[in-house]
Amino acid sequence: MTVHIGVIGAGMIGQDHIRRLTEVITGATVTAVTDIDQARATEVATRVGATALPTGSDLIHSPDVDAVLVTSWGPTHAEHVLNAIAVGKPVFCEKPLATTAEDCLRIVEAERAHGRRLVQVGFMRRFDVGYRQMKDVLTSGAIGTPLIVHCAHRNPTVPDSYVSAMAAQDTAVHEIDVLRWLLDDEISSVQVITPRATGKRFGHLKDPQIMLFETANGVRIDLEVFVNCQYGYDIQCETVGEDGLVRLPDPAAVGIRTAGRHGTAVLQDWKGRFGDAFDTEFGEWVAAVTAGAEPTGPSSWDGYAATVITDAAVQSLESGGEVITVDMKPRPVLYGATS
Amino acid sequence: MTVHIGVIGAGMIGQDHIRRLTEVITGATVTAVTDIDQARATEVATRVGATALPTGSDLIHSPDVDAVLVTSWGPTHAEHVLNAIAVGKPVFCEKPLATTAEDCLRIVEAERAHGRRLVQVGFMRRFDVGYRQMKDVLTSGAIGTPLIVHCAHRNPTVPDSYVSAMAAQDTAVHEIDVLRWLLDDEISSVQVITPRATGKRFGHLKDPQIMLFETANGVRIDLEVFVNCQYGYDIQCETVGEDGLVRLPDPAAVGIRTAGRHGTAVLQDWKGRFGDAFDTEFGEWVAAVTAGAEPTGPSSWDGYAATVITDAAVQSLESGGEVITVDMKPRPVLYGATS
Amino acid sequence: MTVHIGVIGAGMIGQDHIRRLTEVITGATVTAVTDIDQARATEVATRVGATALPTGSDLIHSPDVDAVLVTSWGPTHAEHVLNAIAVGKPVFCEKPLATTAEDCLRIVEAERAHGRRLVQVGFMRRFDVGYRQMKDVLTSGAIGTPLIVHCAHRNPTVPDSYVSAMAAQDTAVHEIDVLRWLLDDEISSVQVITPRATGKRFGHLKDPQIMLFETANGVRIDLEVFVNCQYGYDIQCETVGEDGLVRLPDPAAVGIRTAGRHGTAVLQDWKGRFGDAFDTEFGEWVAAVTAGAEPTGPSSWDGYAATVITDAAVQSLESGGEVITVDMKPRPVLYGATS
Amino acid sequence: MTVHIGVIGAGMIGQDHIRRLTEVITGATVTAVTDIDQARATEVATRVGATALPTGSDLIHSPDVDAVLVTSWGPTHAEHVLNAIAVGKPVFCEKPLATTAEDCLRIVEAERAHGRRLVQVGFMRRFDVGYRQMKDVLTSGAIGTPLIVHCAHRNPTVPDSYVSAMAAQDTAVHEIDVLRWLLDDEISSVQVITPRATGKRFGHLKDPQIMLFETANGVRIDLEVFVNCQYGYDIQCETVGEDGLVRLPDPAAVGIRTAGRHGTAVLQDWKGRFGDAFDTEFGEWVAAVTAGAEPTGPSSWDGYAATVITDAAVQSLESGGEVITVDMKPRPVLYGATS
Repeated sequence: MTVHIGVIGAGMIGQDHIRRLTEVITGATVTAVTDIDQARATEVATRVGATALPTGSDLIHSPDVDAVLVTSWGPTHAEHVLNAIAVGKPVFCEKPLATTAEDCLRIVEAERAHGRRLVQVGFMRRFDVGYRQMKDVLTSGAIGTPLIVHCAHRNPTVPDSYVSAMAAQDTAVHEIDVLRWLLDDEISSVQVITPRATGKRFGHLKDPQIMLFETANGVRIDLEVFVNCQYGYDIQCETVGEDGLVRLPDPAAVGIRTAGRHGTAVLQDWKGRFGDAFDTEFGEWVAAVTAGAEPTGPSSWDGYAATVITDAAVQSLESGGEVITVDMKPRPVLYGATS
Repeated sequence: MTVHIGVIGAGMIGQDHIRRLTEVITGATVTAVTDIDQARATEVATRVGATALPTGSDLIHSPDVDAVLVTSWGPTHAEHVLNAIAVGKPVFCEKPLATTAEDCLRIVEAERAHGRRLVQVGFMRRFDVGYRQMKDVLTSGAIGTPLIVHCAHRNPTVPDSYVSAMAAQDTAVHEIDVLRWLLDDEISSVQVITPRATGKRFGHLKDPQIMLFETANGVRIDLEVFVNCQYGYDIQCETVGEDGLVRLPDPAAVGIRTAGRHGTAVLQDWKGRFGDAFDTEFGEWVAAVTAGAEPTGPSSWDGYAATVITDAAVQSLESGGEVITVDMKPRPVLYGATS
Repeated sequence: MTVHIGVIGAGMIGQDHIRRLTEVITGATVTAVTDIDQARATEVATRVGATALPTGSDLIHSPDVDAVLVTSWGPTHAEHVLNAIAVGKPVFCEKPLATTAEDCLRIVEAERAHGRRLVQVGFMRRFDVGYRQMKDVLTSGAIGTPLIVHCAHRNPTVPDSYVSAMAAQDTAVHEIDVLRWLLDDEISSVQVITPRATGKRFGHLKDPQIMLFETANGVRIDLEVFVNCQYGYDIQCETVGEDGLVRLPDPAAVGIRTAGRHGTAVLQDWKGRFGDAFDTEFGEWVAAVTAGAEPTGPSSWDGYAATVITDAAVQSLESGGEVITVDMKPRPVLYGATS
Repeated sequence: MTVHIGVIGAGMIGQDHIRRLTEVITGATVTAVTDIDQARATEVATRVGATALPTGSDLIHSPDVDAVLVTSWGPTHAEHVLNAIAVGKPVFCEKPLATTAEDCLRIVEAERAHGRRLVQVGFMRRFDVGYRQMKDVLTSGAIGTPLIVHCAHRNPTVPDSYVSAMAAQDTAVHEIDVLRWLLDDEISSVQVITPRATGKRFGHLKDPQIMLFETANGVRIDLEVFVNCQYGYDIQCETVGEDGLVRLPDPAAVGIRTAGRHGTAVLQDWKGRFGDAFDTEFGEWVAAVTAGAEPTGPSSWDGYAATVITDAAVQSLESGGEVITVDMKPRPVLYGATS
């Protein structure tokens, strides 16, 4: 049984996911593609033997589409996701679920009214082997109750279009989601402080930033976001508990000794770091859709929470570093007890 | 376009490869299964929507089989591979290609007569990310001309059925294949020496063993084979060149600090260590078959070489540690210049 | 030429330094000892062939004392150091230089009036090989201008007598000194935040604490102080600069693989971690005294700065986490340009 | 109480040990110096306030010499050590104890006749923290009975005067001594095999070499000696036992991430690697002499054994790789049960 997937948005990320669905994992086929650029939709559709459709709505209603993948421009996400819920089809929406908390809430409410989960949001870190090992260690109790998490999220460089608020919205949002899941806890406040800025950035950008989070259970998280660190793409996470700590490994790479140095290569982008996680993410999603089961990945509630928390982080940044309380609605029963 | 694969041998390894072809990678489907145990063939075939056929020959000749996977009992490999060559179908044969050097040579000769490569032998290490990084480093010249390779191949335990000769035939054979490929060089002599045996083995077994290889270019390889090392499954490889060295990484795993120790888990079997390599191996094979291209993995010549070299290792072991010269036929042009 | 040292305070730390001066390093001898407990002074003095004297003042004025080591109870430090300055003798004072900023300033002023440096304060981390390597890397420019420092200071447990303010005064004070020196920068504000407390502490204690420092140059420092971390004594420090980062190594220790784990032992106290640094500290101090040169280690100004900054940290802790500006006097020329 | 030491041989290594005795460790003073170059003896003696004496014999008989340090040219060692034994003075002899097995045996016999140990031979690795940790692990039984040891001894380069036999005599001799001690076992045979030689050596030199040792208990040791490895000074040792393995750590050094690489510096010579071991070696020797106790370091029997084993290694090298049985006399009771 093969899941027929319709893809809304055939840009770079959409094409990469189409490649994943058609060339890497098994159990899925792409049957329909749409894009605001109709020529691009046609070209991509033709490449994989799919049909190009004029609009997202056409695609969602197509009888040849079992499940919908939304990889279009962020501001259009909410409409497509709501349409998919309206027709009761599973929908995988790349982050963000929506660009405003209000729109996220509309999706949550629509899904709640539908009565079962249809939406998965594209936060891939929950599918990374290292984070999963860390989650297992936390669950096992081996390091006791978590108290502190130290994180770093570093990119070698970003383009001029990257503005200061994106440190929260586009970058830290991955840690926000994965930490809520790792700790099974909710983030209750945020503070963003700004160290001396690196000279190696576009002048408008505050980089690096340090984000401080507190959770409902009192765990403190410090996250360095440094998107022009020059040396590589580097993701660090260490959780300190009452009895010990657990730390993400660096990616395995051959060690080389030459010319007085012992070392390994550092990755240069997220594709090398999280490529396997993306494969697992889609593999598990397709398996759930095939089984007619609810998706097991990040929910629309998680998408809402991520938006509220990043909004608070941006507010803190813009206020010059105030502590901002995260103001979140009560969680509907559909989304379980905590995160 | 989906490759139709017929599988000969539905035992544990056969079923694992069927799972891989049907549930992990894309582009292939299993259409036929046979096994000496007809009931098992039927059960496995039913599970994946394939047809159970009475014999390997039936399967190889079936019009619904584009390519053949041989995972039956070792002594039957040669016959199936020769049959597949006779009808011009691509065939992936689990190691060993054949149980005798003579049979391997018959396959090489048949393939040479056919005029192009049809056979790939199931040595998966060439598809492991770490070995591929090491190969890239060697090819780049970063450590200069290779001079020495230090290796270890350790299993936690083996069953009573494992006898001393299997240290070469079943265990070291993986290093033999991957080192010939890494070094782009041929092994010319073997010597097996036996340290004090561990008390934690069945009494009939010489374990550990140290195998010393010399290559045509004068590279010296020492390989510790220790199949009852107790602590885990551990693969080590370090190549020392004129300007430096390169070493396989340990598999990435979260680091844990508790109770006065900093540490990581050691894997317990080859599935965790080489699972991704198996996926890549089959993914690339299916891609080559789909493209109508020659396979890029280990050839029947590599299968022949592995058998001749392991025979020499067993001879050295049984002689009490003599240096045995590897006596290999000239390599046909079909198989390229070196390894 | 052997330096004759008089030791004020023959408690545990005093005796350990006496052992260091007499049994480990060369070039010094202990000629006089005093202690509030006269019997202990006599016993310790006898052991090393020194004279027991009734008071610190007697010792400082003794013609058989070239240089003074103050290892008595903290509140007595200022008086002894001022007395030593008054007679122009070099004095090594264990931390703290004095228990109040006012007393520290009196020492600074007395030394300034004397016209050259006589005082060294016992912050030993500047003598640790790892921190010195880090300093060399920073000085070399290899990682560019420093922007952020991440630190952790963990002890397995502390006794009941350890109170919340000591996290700054006794524990973080080491990082405060070494970071001022590493960065060649001054700390300008402090904020202490308190994560969920570990259950494995005495009830009165806030543990762990996270201290956030900002420097005059805008560098941001986060320091986890966790004095009941259970698993070991663990000091971490990572400096992130514009072009890369540099991180303290874990102490070298043999790696062991057994029973499914690869690991190393974690130290259990500061003696193993900083024993060599203490030896170097006293070796370099004795060499400077022998040469008649000013000491090269932490100055009385550094002792003053450490006290002002720890006072600010305690104030932040007690305020519930407010950002406290460090209010430091102008630095006299005697103490150089920055730290 | 200060030990008065007379030093025979004031060349580079002699001067370095004099520095150690006078400037680093406590409890010793150098009172007399002699050298074949009388001017050098005078200069060095003057520098440390010692007396320059015309001959080794004068020095050994001087009433102002409690203990003798022999750091002269190798062929003169035996005579000085025998003279020291004749007058019953403790003597520390740099390796080799003597240049022939016969001379070593004469020393062993003289010491045996004297009735207690006076001689310590300058193998410093037994004093290295890493090897001591490994010894503790072996003694604890944590990895079970040792079966195999993998070693590497690499130098960046050697001068033209270094000839092939020195790979055993000057380089591998350190592993030979430390492994006999680590394993508490005797080496019974040696085989030296020669990989392809590096092009980066003087033409007369066989480099690298692989030395294979077997012990009385059947442990197998492989040792790579590579004295022109270019990249650094690198000492590796891993002992594999029935239940696990223990490995020497790399020296601690700050980790640096810049320009796509994560790495640490590799040491360039033995001074950085074994400087602390030398300090400990002399500290413990001086303590034993002070206490009037027998030395605890390598004995004259260990010096003899090292010479016999390196002779066998050279014989194997010159034979083209034959296995050479080590022919050692029975061990006198004075030297304990095994090594």
